Amino acid sequence: MKVPKAINHLIESFQRLPGIGPKTAQRLTFYLLHVPQSELEEFADNLQALKKETLLCSICKNVSEEDPCSLCTEISRDKTTILVVEQPLDVLAFEKTGRYRGLYHVLHGKISPLENIGPDEIYIEDLLKRLDGIEEIIIATNPTMEGEATAMYLNKKLKVFGQKLKISRLGMGIPTGADLEYADEVTLTQAIEGRREI
Amino acid sequence: MKVPKAINHLIESFQRLPGIGPKTAQRLTFYLLHVPQSELEEFADNLQALKKETLLCSICKNVSEEDPCSLCTEISRDKTTILVVEQPLDVLAFEKTGRYRGLYHVLHGKISPLENIGPDEIYIEDLLKRLDGIEEIIIATNPTMEGEATAMYLNKKLKVFGQKLKISRLGMGIPTGADLEYADEVTLTQAIEGRREI
Repeated sequence: MKVPKAINHLIESFQRLPGIGPKTAQRLTFYLLHVPQSELEEFADNLQALKKETLLCSICKNVSEEDPCSLCTEISRDKTTILVVEQPLDVLAFEKTGRYRGLYHVLHGKISPLENIGPDEIYIEDLLKRLDGIEEIIIATNPTMEGEATAMYLNKKLKVFGQKLKISRLGMGIPTGADLEYADEVTLTQAIEGRREI
Repeated sequence: MKVPKAINHLIESFQRLPGIGPKTAQRLTFYLLHVPQSELEEFADNLQALKKETLLCSICKNVSEEDPCSLCTEISRDKTTILVVEQPLDVLAFEKTGRYRGLYHVLHGKISPLENIGPDEIYIEDLLKRLDGIEEIIIATNPTMEGEATAMYLNKKLKVFGQKLKISRLGMGIPTGADLEYADEVTLTQAIEGRREI
């Protein structure tokens, strides 16, 4: 059976997305055959608008509609603390907690020699330029090999700015709701090391 | 944090797809922020073209580029057998086996009273109109409650066309590679009932 070209093309587009394999791409494409054309047009418009109607904030490099972004300009925020994350999605995650009221800095990646991503490929230099008046930097890169390497590199670079700048890393340990039985050794070791008096 | 409208719109579009929840929709959208605009345009074009460049074959109702479709016009196929399926994807699955050489008929759905889908909402009438010269109908709807109901309804309708028309249903039993231990009772019962001499 010759599958129509239009179907194959859309399957290929879906397959390029992370976590979407050939079977899912096929299922999504055939599902869309039953959807009204207007909905397909809307989906297409949204795809085309995604990058045209967003920009990176020139200060914190977060994705935004205006420059500087609403997080950088909000008056009530603590302008002495910067939380450094890998991706814009991480900012969203912290904002959902509602407990962090400082500034952010989005690196847009992590140092990863295997993927040829060095310190210059991510927004580290831009972070070092905005340290004026900053009292604490919280490094919140992911607890992966690359995230840790990025944190170490950042720590080394930031130490140069003197003793006054406090540099911290997110607390490590058991996540809420987890089962101790299934926690790996590294996590358990970090939980013991990071224990707090009650 | 105010998420840019363009991002929220695309997240909503992704969320409408089956099996894609809010978290996945978010992940896909933020992934696409790092993709070149040209790739987004291509994705959008493929979405818009999907239904414009395909049509339903007037005979078998399969999705195709031309009418009648290549399966209906192929000379080497057995024109006396029709295999009835719910969706175009099912045709693809049977064609991949390379063992079935007859014709197809795509119902585009199944009888489902809960979703207000009766026999008139799917292409049953079109099947009854093309029985001239047909010797066997293989009903290959899914082994779900709705699929079985559709098969029973089809069987009743087809029986009217006389003893000469052979009506069959796909063989039921243990799938290849499965573990007997984990098979449910219905499947095991059907496997015993459908046993074959070796």
